[in-house]
Amino acid sequence: MKFCSDCGAPVALLVPEGDNLPRHVCSKCAAIHYSNPKVVVGCVPEWQGQVLLCRRAIEPRLGYWTMPAGFMENGETAREGAARETLEEARSRVEIAELISIISIPNINQVHLMFRGRMLDGGHGSTSESSAVQLFDEADIPWDALAFRTVIHTLRHYLEDRKRGLQGLHIIDLGALSS
Amino acid sequence: MKFCSDCGAPVALLVPEGDNLPRHVCSKCAAIHYSNPKVVVGCVPEWQGQVLLCRRAIEPRLGYWTMPAGFMENGETAREGAARETLEEARSRVEIAELISIISIPNINQVHLMFRGRMLDGGHGSTSESSAVQLFDEADIPWDALAFRTVIHTLRHYLEDRKRGLQGLHIIDLGALSS
Repeated sequence: MKFCSDCGAPVALLVPEGDNLPRHVCSKCAAIHYSNPKVVVGCVPEWQGQVLLCRRAIEPRLGYWTMPAGFMENGETAREGAARETLEEARSRVEIAELISIISIPNINQVHLMFRGRMLDGGHGSTSESSAVQLFDEADIPWDALAFRTVIHTLRHYLEDRKRGLQGLHIIDLGALSS
Repeated sequence: MKFCSDCGAPVALLVPEGDNLPRHVCSKCAAIHYSNPKVVVGCVPEWQGQVLLCRRAIEPRLGYWTMPAGFMENGETAREGAARETLEEARSRVEIAELISIISIPNINQVHLMFRGRMLDGGHGSTSESSAVQLFDEADIPWDALAFRTVIHTLRHYLEDRKRGLQGLHIIDLGALSS
């Protein structure tokens, strides 16, 4: 941030009175501009024991497989966001169920909330963001071609819990090497 | 947002190509500026069966009681943020444990993550944000003087679960009347 989004004047990075972190403060109108982590919402869509994955048609990690997920938008709940992303990226209609994982990635200022998604029918299809969308049996999941560590952690916990008849929540903090 | 934070030129609200929501787009440098929900992190600090609450010294809801909580900052995990807020607002050192509630409040673009907090010692004290910080037995909790619906929901679930020997996660969506 170089300019004030309220008045267009240059901003300076300084610690406002009563605060303890540097913020972008307008040199003219004194507006304080905060920057905070973003929320990524998504789900593991399930259908008759299989899970739905998307092959990324866009960077980063083009060609690798992921769960449908994306930035939560203003005006929606976390579950609404996860269902919307699943429809947009995989053409799949889901009911969002339990939370599987909450993953903090401080080096990129993100928190991921990954839910179980019950597909309302088997329908799914490729989109501008997903060159392929496919249901996988557990044995066929392309572990070596998964796009992100968040996907690996979430899928692994989901499958382990399912095997043991559990529906656990996993609080995970990823370090500097997260992809 | 009226001006581009990258170059200072006026922005317009329009739907960028490949998107489906209006964004603030710079009229000069074409930068797209997204606005997304913010994360609030906090905890219910517990000590020998009591819970720690803070009497708000600031608006909104000055004089009402709340759990320590605040906006998650860049560069920290959700649990680090909850512990930091507890130290800042209640002078209490906690180990952040299980997640109690995840509360979406779409009309103010927030997601609250409220954890159980195990106080490392009984220490606590008032701060610039909290005119009083006090340990409460369950029977003494000031239900009629709690600051926000998020506090009421989280405390109620926490206490009900504790009574039943559970540690559940509660996914809650608050509507337009949330305070």
